[in-house]
Amino acid sequence: PEKSKSKVVQVASEAKKLGQDDPRRIIHSLKVGLAITLVSLFYSYDPLYQGFGVSAMWAVITVVVVFEFSVGATLGKGLNRGLATFSAGFLGVGAHRLASFSTERSEPILLGLSVFVLAAAVTFIRFFPRMKARYDYGLLIFILTFCLICVSGYRDDEVLDITHKRLSTVLIGGATTVIICIFICPVWAGHDLHNLVATNLEKLGSFLEGFGGEYFRKSGDSESKDNKSSLEGYKSVLNSKSTEESWVNFAKWEPRHGRFRYRHPWDQYLKIGTLTRQCAYRIEDLNNYLNSEIQAPLEIRVKIQELCTKMSSESSYALKELALAIREMIRPSTANAHIANSKVAAKNLKSLIKTGLWRDADLLEIIPTATVASILIDVVACTEKIAESVHE
Amino acid sequence: PEKSKSKVVQVASEAKKLGQDDPRRIIHSLKVGLAITLVSLFYSYDPLYQGFGVSAMWAVITVVVVFEFSVGATLGKGLNRGLATFSAGFLGVGAHRLASFSTERSEPILLGLSVFVLAAAVTFIRFFPRMKARYDYGLLIFILTFCLICVSGYRDDEVLDITHKRLSTVLIGGATTVIICIFICPVWAGHDLHNLVATNLEKLGSFLEGFGGEYFRKSGDSESKDNKSSLEGYKSVLNSKSTEESWVNFAKWEPRHGRFRYRHPWDQYLKIGTLTRQCAYRIEDLNNYLNSEIQAPLEIRVKIQELCTKMSSESSYALKELALAIREMIRPSTANAHIANSKVAAKNLKSLIKTGLWRDADLLEIIPTATVASILIDVVACTEKIAESVHE
Repeated sequence: PEKSKSKVVQVASEAKKLGQDDPRRIIHSLKVGLAITLVSLFYSYDPLYQGFGVSAMWAVITVVVVFEFSVGATLGKGLNRGLATFSAGFLGVGAHRLASFSTERSEPILLGLSVFVLAAAVTFIRFFPRMKARYDYGLLIFILTFCLICVSGYRDDEVLDITHKRLSTVLIGGATTVIICIFICPVWAGHDLHNLVATNLEKLGSFLEGFGGEYFRKSGDSESKDNKSSLEGYKSVLNSKSTEESWVNFAKWEPRHGRFRYRHPWDQYLKIGTLTRQCAYRIEDLNNYLNSEIQAPLEIRVKIQELCTKMSSESSYALKELALAIREMIRPSTANAHIANSKVAAKNLKSLIKTGLWRDADLLEIIPTATVASILIDVVACTEKIAESVHE
Repeated sequence: PEKSKSKVVQVASEAKKLGQDDPRRIIHSLKVGLAITLVSLFYSYDPLYQGFGVSAMWAVITVVVVFEFSVGATLGKGLNRGLATFSAGFLGVGAHRLASFSTERSEPILLGLSVFVLAAAVTFIRFFPRMKARYDYGLLIFILTFCLICVSGYRDDEVLDITHKRLSTVLIGGATTVIICIFICPVWAGHDLHNLVATNLEKLGSFLEGFGGEYFRKSGDSESKDNKSSLEGYKSVLNSKSTEESWVNFAKWEPRHGRFRYRHPWDQYLKIGTLTRQCAYRIEDLNNYLNSEIQAPLEIRVKIQELCTKMSSESSYALKELALAIREMIRPSTANAHIANSKVAAKNLKSLIKTGLWRDADLLEIIPTATVASILIDVVACTEKIAESVHE
């Protein structure tokens, strides 16, 4: 009992954390409960039940399956489901009509054959990458509806009636879901994507901000551990690709909201995301040098301290400025100046190295430091590219 | 018409390519068609229809929704669906019984309230990362079944009967799906994961194999472009994380198959995958130096050519050997020797640099080359870590 009690406490604290991290999760759960209860009331309400019969449960099913966290995902699924039900219903009724012209013996064979061919073909279509990204769910529902109509159609001749009922209940369920999803505390995928891209840039900026101080710290200093772990925020950027891609797909379904038009250039975010990741790979490298056990002696590092710190802090300002510009959707005003500053620092660093400031030092000890310098120069170049793409 | 014709041709060639890339896709489509047709026949067959009535369509729905590409995903969904239907049915019947003790007026209110509370709670549970990874679909079906039973239960008193029918049809559909999925040309997620991890290591190996030749090529040489693009195979490794994670989740559902036990150490693959990606970040770096416009003069590079080529080719042998060892599930025999060789080369390179072979050269021109050398040294270290983890 002691053990299960601690388990319960653990789960409860985890749940609390989930809710605190993003209170929209709690609201979402309540919204889902509300939508399902509303549709269930519809179903329990006598006149409607008489009208729709068993088909009315499709309204409940639609709500449960279609309601997703973000508006984009919900709309995408809802539209997919609606369109697929409509077109598959149409096709199913057609197939049923055609089959009814044949003899009674061949009818089930014909229907079975059409079910087989259609299911196999549509399943294959689901492998097309473009279809998978946006219409996967619709294709699934297409197979489902077609099969149900073909098979149940063989049973009774009210095919048209059933199809009509099913379509209208799906529409009722879908409409309830979409309305609740959009009008009660909506969660916009586009908005989240927008913030994610900006936050990722900020994370890189924070790393660069802290990097100079950390790298040129005298090794005896305390509180180094704490700082180091606070620099690791950028790690999540490395694997952000799949999240970004799915959110872009959701965002494309969303109507105009807030400061976003319907055809907001969402693909631009993917481009910025890719560049951000490329920059993050460099930073992963810098972080490795930071944590490497073999450090060049401080007197070597110190010679380039000023310029390197300048480069990294100016890049950091530029990245943060760009992140802010994305967030607020304004033109970045001073980012170019910061980039220019860091480029000047990079150039100075190059000529400083050329004048041979380490002439007498051990070449092997110089290399890590020199590498850090050259990665920083790369980071500056990356920052410039990101800035260009933000301007677009 | 001309335009639409070319569109059709384009889609057809794309479809052909999809089929050729992985013929299992075609087989999978046919399997889905077969399963659906079989279940439809069940449904059309009179005695059964009399027995199950409208509930029989749940068999078709189950097949369409549960049938996934790999055995693991199908089993996972099938078990989720079965268990969720069972437990939600149990709970739904219970809720319905409890509500029936109350007055007729309060009954729908009680049922509506329980639907709301349960839907909201379970929706929140879906946010737990661990639940999301393995039981997301089951939780969805749980809400669905509970709501349908609560709501339809209010209508007629045959709740138990309906629940029983629905559960048995879901079982029929699920069993058909699982049997066809496993016994006709099965696609094992574990097997695919196994190959993916090995292939990723091979891709890194191929890059390192070609790297030496490419980097120390005289700039005038032709056919450089071709080679460069053939080196880019490693790029897909950078973003392999989400694929690996979902396949591990699928693989955990799979029973013993081929050379894999039921409790195969799948998490180990994630570990190797993470190390592989870390190595890939380094290689992304190397590739940048390869494609960078500013190249150190050849006479500088040439001095470390022998050792660098040695390091990269020995690491490449080691990686390929490790990939083969994973693929064939044998102990890598010579990988350690290769790693030792590359470590010796790394050490020699270090002392070569220490003796000051570039004493008179321009320091700025040395840096890129030196960086390449130091990244290679890192790669050797990464390779060693991967080897350790493969041994486990």
